[in-house]
Amino acid sequence: MSAKLFDRAALIGIGLIGSSLARALRRDSPGTRIVACARRSETLATARRLGLADETTRDPAEAVRGADLVVIATPISAYAAIGRRIGPALEQGAILTDVGSVKEAVIRDLRPRIPPGVAFVPGHPVAGTEHSGPEAGFADLFRDRWCILIPLPETPPAALARIAGMWEQFGMRIATMSAAHHDKVLAMTSHLPHLIAYTIVGTATDLEDSLKSEVIKFSAGGFRDFTRIAASDPVMWRDIFLNNREAVLEMLQRFSEDLTALQRAIRWGEGDKLEERFTRTRAIRRSIIEAKQA
Amino acid sequence: MSAKLFDRAALIGIGLIGSSLARALRRDSPGTRIVACARRSETLATARRLGLADETTRDPAEAVRGADLVVIATPISAYAAIGRRIGPALEQGAILTDVGSVKEAVIRDLRPRIPPGVAFVPGHPVAGTEHSGPEAGFADLFRDRWCILIPLPETPPAALARIAGMWEQFGMRIATMSAAHHDKVLAMTSHLPHLIAYTIVGTATDLEDSLKSEVIKFSAGGFRDFTRIAASDPVMWRDIFLNNREAVLEMLQRFSEDLTALQRAIRWGEGDKLEERFTRTRAIRRSIIEAKQA
Repeated sequence: MSAKLFDRAALIGIGLIGSSLARALRRDSPGTRIVACARRSETLATARRLGLADETTRDPAEAVRGADLVVIATPISAYAAIGRRIGPALEQGAILTDVGSVKEAVIRDLRPRIPPGVAFVPGHPVAGTEHSGPEAGFADLFRDRWCILIPLPETPPAALARIAGMWEQFGMRIATMSAAHHDKVLAMTSHLPHLIAYTIVGTATDLEDSLKSEVIKFSAGGFRDFTRIAASDPVMWRDIFLNNREAVLEMLQRFSEDLTALQRAIRWGEGDKLEERFTRTRAIRRSIIEAKQA
Repeated sequence: MSAKLFDRAALIGIGLIGSSLARALRRDSPGTRIVACARRSETLATARRLGLADETTRDPAEAVRGADLVVIATPISAYAAIGRRIGPALEQGAILTDVGSVKEAVIRDLRPRIPPGVAFVPGHPVAGTEHSGPEAGFADLFRDRWCILIPLPETPPAALARIAGMWEQFGMRIATMSAAHHDKVLAMTSHLPHLIAYTIVGTATDLEDSLKSEVIKFSAGGFRDFTRIAASDPVMWRDIFLNNREAVLEMLQRFSEDLTALQRAIRWGEGDKLEERFTRTRAIRRSIIEAKQA
């Protein structure tokens, strides 16, 4: 068993990521007292039933009182209001971090609310499944995945190191970068793929009924991989697209141009162009396997 | 062990599907003599080394001589030439089937070459992986997947039943439909998803190097699911798109309209529209899980 990572952890939001974090803390740092905060009483009752929290509250300000670690793990649209509520209640010496999939917007919303003497370490553990809610979490969700941390000019190096150490304890590898760079990389690796998966599954949803039932029946041909991605939490993803608009629209523009080029090659029967394009993509798959991310 | 399914099976093409079929025949019908035919001697040497064939030849006409089962399992662009070669050599009473992912074009290319007394059962076992070649196959590839058969007016019911029985023996469920309907359903469930996956991985390939290496590193966020699909055989997929052009272009048009609508919703910050759209797609995922195709 490792040393206690924190004395008192306030988890604002106890969904897939928040509850996985609670489970990892229970496993690796059982001395840490966990306070879970959620908007809905049912969610908190589930967290208590699963043994994920020592205390629960619907009031973020109450949750952070006395906490030396505060983790925001809600949909991004809730951050600004949470920041307003917890700002005055944060303890001197506390570390505030988050798990949001967009970083510029998060920093914009939270940074002005953080009092002097509280360290802010914006973070993004790049891990997840298509499931959501406190019952979907598991302690090993973070294992062998990357956690991206965004050190701000005012972030104390010691606070950065403690947050990095916590995620490393849970099996993550740490990368640091600027918020703008993070948002661009994730627009390509995560946000655009989700947008496309949501779109194609939506396109299938609109098919006439006879065709739709067969799409479900014969989904093994590739489509079902998209449906898994498109089953992810709708509110969380709505917030990601609204808060990473510029980077997503830029990547989407590139994608649309490339798709139009392939469409044209199909229409005009340009087999060489198709084959050349399809051959190049295999190399990327090999790189991912080599990077042990497959 | 089951009764012998066929006396002599000629497998024209011994890649992922052909070699999986050979393995399934070895397992369930060891009395069947297998002749493998491929264009490249190296492929045939591999098939021999793996014990997948009793005889090998690069000449399709030689392969089908004396065979009561002929299965074409090459990229679709080779069908017309193969049809010309094997037509005069097919045995009276033989059954010719195939595994191509497009059916109208296949029937157009093969049907005129089939002599009276030979039964033609166009087929499509909807199964596969992103790997290719004789070493990638495995006997259980077909288990719990659908096999679509296309009965033509001239197809003898007994021949249809024998081909259905063979695939059922290998664990497949059988569906029959018209070639036109097949091509539309597969355009949505398989061809469009592959085209999109190829496109997005291609878009990432074109990113400036600094961004590209990070896309590989952080691919766990959704992107890597697309790279798996986009690692599929380039020639096979080129042929599918060229031979199912109309249906693919129609589905692609619908997809593009839906993507444009979501793009617009992101640009104008229409959160309700995004959330509503994302919520609907979860139902499709649930249907697929209920249909046991997930």
